[in-house]
Amino acid sequence: MNTLPNGEKILEAAKRISEYIHHTPVLSSNNLDELTNSKLFFKCENLQKAGAFKSRGAVNAVFSLSYKEIENGVCTHSSGNHAAALARAASLRKIKAHIVMPENSSKVKIAAVKHYGGIITFCKPTLDSREQTLEYVRRKTNALEIHPYNNYKIIAGQATAALELINTIKDLNIIMAPVGGGGLLSGTALSTSYFSPGTKVIAAEPKGADDAYRSFVSKSFVPSLKPNTVADGLLTSLGSLTFPIIIDNVHSILTVKEESIIKAMKLTWERMKIIIEPSSAVPLAAVLENHDLFATKRVGIIISGGNVDLDALPWFQKK
Amino acid sequence: MNTLPNGEKILEAAKRISEYIHHTPVLSSNNLDELTNSKLFFKCENLQKAGAFKSRGAVNAVFSLSYKEIENGVCTHSSGNHAAALARAASLRKIKAHIVMPENSSKVKIAAVKHYGGIITFCKPTLDSREQTLEYVRRKTNALEIHPYNNYKIIAGQATAALELINTIKDLNIIMAPVGGGGLLSGTALSTSYFSPGTKVIAAEPKGADDAYRSFVSKSFVPSLKPNTVADGLLTSLGSLTFPIIIDNVHSILTVKEESIIKAMKLTWERMKIIIEPSSAVPLAAVLENHDLFATKRVGIIISGGNVDLDALPWFQKK
Repeated sequence: MNTLPNGEKILEAAKRISEYIHHTPVLSSNNLDELTNSKLFFKCENLQKAGAFKSRGAVNAVFSLSYKEIENGVCTHSSGNHAAALARAASLRKIKAHIVMPENSSKVKIAAVKHYGGIITFCKPTLDSREQTLEYVRRKTNALEIHPYNNYKIIAGQATAALELINTIKDLNIIMAPVGGGGLLSGTALSTSYFSPGTKVIAAEPKGADDAYRSFVSKSFVPSLKPNTVADGLLTSLGSLTFPIIIDNVHSILTVKEESIIKAMKLTWERMKIIIEPSSAVPLAAVLENHDLFATKRVGIIISGGNVDLDALPWFQKK
Repeated sequence: MNTLPNGEKILEAAKRISEYIHHTPVLSSNNLDELTNSKLFFKCENLQKAGAFKSRGAVNAVFSLSYKEIENGVCTHSSGNHAAALARAASLRKIKAHIVMPENSSKVKIAAVKHYGGIITFCKPTLDSREQTLEYVRRKTNALEIHPYNNYKIIAGQATAALELINTIKDLNIIMAPVGGGGLLSGTALSTSYFSPGTKVIAAEPKGADDAYRSFVSKSFVPSLKPNTVADGLLTSLGSLTFPIIIDNVHSILTVKEESIIKAMKLTWERMKIIIEPSSAVPLAAVLENHDLFATKRVGIIISGGNVDLDALPWFQKK
């Protein structure tokens, strides 16, 4: 699968991963609908295996490879949800997962990778150290690298979240996803263009990490240099595979303030009684900041994950 | 309905309330199953309308009365979930709800009652003041008092949560509920004895508010005098109607430590990604404290509610 995933590839991915992932629920809240004067449908990937949509792409990548390709295991560098998702997918396939993690990764994230049997190598918390350490691990183990987003199998896997949403809720005017490296967003955009072409895809990004927005409007790649946002899943730059998909299939990218992200996160916890991580609150923050754009619309929102350090909540830290 | 609700009355209640409440999901967690070596099924009343099972009883009570009985509205005293649930039920029936609330009630709870159009009269935070103020309001308005739990229509409404759980998950060995005034527990016990007589009902109560436990083992009513627990929904005494149902239909009551309640609450947030209030964590706390009793069993747990002040979480306060 070295070409852009078409509709058939996404349907194949959905079938491939179905026994290993949750078909997550779509929840609504009258309360939030009244507040925004729109009809919001939340696709709850926070309730996904390993607590994030990343399980979809990881399982699709690991299970679509031949045993020969992955007999020495898989490897990646990640401080976040992709690490746990890949370790889990590898354990299901009964192969090894070598995970390079920055030494300042959260205890919760490290524990999750260990829980799924991932073999961790710690590195310094810089991109250089992450890449060099991964290269060292890859050469030593001959494991196959599975990039967190710049990989068509990962993208096809992430695309299945929007596919399920489209199959569950009809006549959406808009589907929203947050954007970091662009794996979820490009998958969402592909599924929407294939399976619900009348629906607009609108991405949301923190103003403090607005490289995708700047890349999108200038139509030329802008790297994420010094991102500064509470949305710790959205710090990375777009990839060479995700960026063109986004340019071709996304209607617009909205950037939001930090205070809106925290407000949207807390509002979701309070009114919907579900735990979402800061990155997942970015689309609702965009709805709150752009009331007129979403009023009276039927809006699907992909809630990307629910992995939060409950001892370090942003509304305590920001005070 | 001045006699003990039989199975037919509970089925009638389920039908009566169905258009006004959520048929809440039953969620599971492999992670918690592994941790407890049991199979746990959580009936998520935290995702219920107004954030708690109380909506069931309140809607059943308000909608089973004739218009003549409630033409002057309904009234109650409550600092918690019953207040919002009754205000909501009254607004659905287009009648007034007069709610007596202690002046130290949380802002969130006061806002919820106002959101549903409840007319609030504040009182001192003592039982005497609550009862005297309610009596004053009742005489002035001629509203009908709807007690939060010592009322067969309320009990029949609360019983519908266990009924839905039993209809969704087969062959449960145990069904658990927390116990405060006993409305949820007595309803749960009645539904279980009628619709799944092979299933044991085990209640859970904080050691710091163990009046139901002491009433149960001594078979004579013990009031809740100076309760001291983070589980703020479980402070009240049993009622004259709930106590006999509990004596006749509950297998046992387990009491749990405060630290277990906080641990179980945090564990549920972390692993299941749902917001539950401290009172709802009491049954899981009992499972954690009594490993052997629940190992290998299929256990249904009624999650009573999800109304939490996110600015005052117990794991921050206890440090």
